[in-house]
Amino acid sequence: MGQRLAKALANSTVGFTELVLVDINQPTNPTEDSRVRCIQKDLFGPGEPESLISANTKLIFHLAAIVSSHAESDFELGYQINLDVTRRLLEACRSSSSSIRFIFSSSLAVYGGALPEVVDDTSVITPQSSYGTQKAMGELLVNDYSRKGYVDGLVLRLPTICVRPGKPNKAASSFVSSIIREPLQGDEAICPVPASLPLWLASPDTIIENLLHAAIFDISNLGNWRTLNLPGIGVTIQDMLDALLRHSDEQTLAKVRFEPNEAISRIVSSWPGKIDNSRTLDAGFNVDLNFDYFIEQFITNDLRKSV
Amino acid sequence: MGQRLAKALANSTVGFTELVLVDINQPTNPTEDSRVRCIQKDLFGPGEPESLISANTKLIFHLAAIVSSHAESDFELGYQINLDVTRRLLEACRSSSSSIRFIFSSSLAVYGGALPEVVDDTSVITPQSSYGTQKAMGELLVNDYSRKGYVDGLVLRLPTICVRPGKPNKAASSFVSSIIREPLQGDEAICPVPASLPLWLASPDTIIENLLHAAIFDISNLGNWRTLNLPGIGVTIQDMLDALLRHSDEQTLAKVRFEPNEAISRIVSSWPGKIDNSRTLDAGFNVDLNFDYFIEQFITNDLRKSV
Repeated sequence: MGQRLAKALANSTVGFTELVLVDINQPTNPTEDSRVRCIQKDLFGPGEPESLISANTKLIFHLAAIVSSHAESDFELGYQINLDVTRRLLEACRSSSSSIRFIFSSSLAVYGGALPEVVDDTSVITPQSSYGTQKAMGELLVNDYSRKGYVDGLVLRLPTICVRPGKPNKAASSFVSSIIREPLQGDEAICPVPASLPLWLASPDTIIENLLHAAIFDISNLGNWRTLNLPGIGVTIQDMLDALLRHSDEQTLAKVRFEPNEAISRIVSSWPGKIDNSRTLDAGFNVDLNFDYFIEQFITNDLRKSV
Repeated sequence: MGQRLAKALANSTVGFTELVLVDINQPTNPTEDSRVRCIQKDLFGPGEPESLISANTKLIFHLAAIVSSHAESDFELGYQINLDVTRRLLEACRSSSSSIRFIFSSSLAVYGGALPEVVDDTSVITPQSSYGTQKAMGELLVNDYSRKGYVDGLVLRLPTICVRPGKPNKAASSFVSSIIREPLQGDEAICPVPASLPLWLASPDTIIENLLHAAIFDISNLGNWRTLNLPGIGVTIQDMLDALLRHSDEQTLAKVRFEPNEAISRIVSSWPGKIDNSRTLDAGFNVDLNFDYFIEQFITNDLRKSV
């Protein structure tokens, strides 16, 4: 997603003289744009977050994270990257003479426990994972640093992204993309949750469009709380598989095998299946039309390139 | 309050071989009990929180904090004590071979912004101060460490305590006790908020009783979220002054002078004026009867001693 965002930024009206991509694995420049610089860095290293921020820094997308199942299995690493690095980046912004828009990607994983049927901005945050806890703590930090005027912060809780291109990762939600991506690529995929499970999704194109909007929109209308649930659509696993069949055939659908996984089910089913989009739509963010569009987007943008 | 709690613990049925009181100012033993040990310590110092916890540690009351107005004026110190020390204590518990009940005192300051008329466990946490932010982050940590089984944690959000004995402190709520305590002691007091402001209060005796209950009650009934709003009563400043007059005279009442303070009003009026007590009362915690009892308690326990 970072690569896609960089490409979108380079082609957008957002003006900049330099765009730095930072990742623990050496990033590549997804554009021909010479303003893009790629840096390999472990952000937890001494002085590393601080070294990235100067008096010329105007905009930060902080997307780096240890994802949900990984943070659950490596307790210390999750707190180091998801909490400590976020805090150190905010501290570096506080020390900078520049006014910096700091966009922090958060997650549905901040929710958990008994939730109302439709979650909204007044719903309580009771995360049932260390990842959700760390993201919820980061949200509080971004709001406090913004309230004090140390950054111009914005927290975006991303819906589960589908279809994510590439390989499965250690996110508990990794299967959400796998059950569409793998069959369309001719591979098998395992679905660890029941077909009836509701999910809250957004497509990569819509997420990128909304991240760009976050860079330029007028935050002052948000009042005193800068955490937003980015718009999504609610579908069940069954809805997703029905759409997959509409865009493929029985043989492709049969590549999805249900194999219940208690640990993944517990995490994913603690997330909300429906969220009130009205506040973010009013603020000019976009939403996907239906799940068929997710599959068409993957076929157009990713599948045709890879085959 | 730590001194009162130590006295109550020594006189209670809670069994222990040693009770250690730790404070940045040298604490004194409020009992004749030789099991009580007093230690002066800056908990932010290297190795300090860790040095307090051994394989014999069974129960921790973590009451230490940089209070609200202080954390607002000293941003770094607030995060160091309210967040970092809490996290280091939890980490030390995680490293210990002992199963430790960890009772963390939190605050109404975690609330803020647009609140429902009656706040309950489903109400969103949007703190409007650094102190509230730091306490909300501590709450999340205690819940995550408990979920993972690293501590047997419990978060108690204390109502504003009134009448707090002693001197005014740097809490934004310090005036809540001052406007009763100072006049009864013959001194002037300043009320920085309007008479109509609703407050959510508990008396020192009730707080201590509830802290003791927290040490022994069966947390397993709480389900998957260990944060409780300790019971309180809702009164306005006017209700408090009416009660003061009933227990004194016009001359005493006249010692309270209204002098609006924007910064204090902003913080205190962001806290809830009414909270649903039902879950905590069901769990065996206690609540005060009415505000007259707060004044009687202060006259009996504190005023008669000091004059």
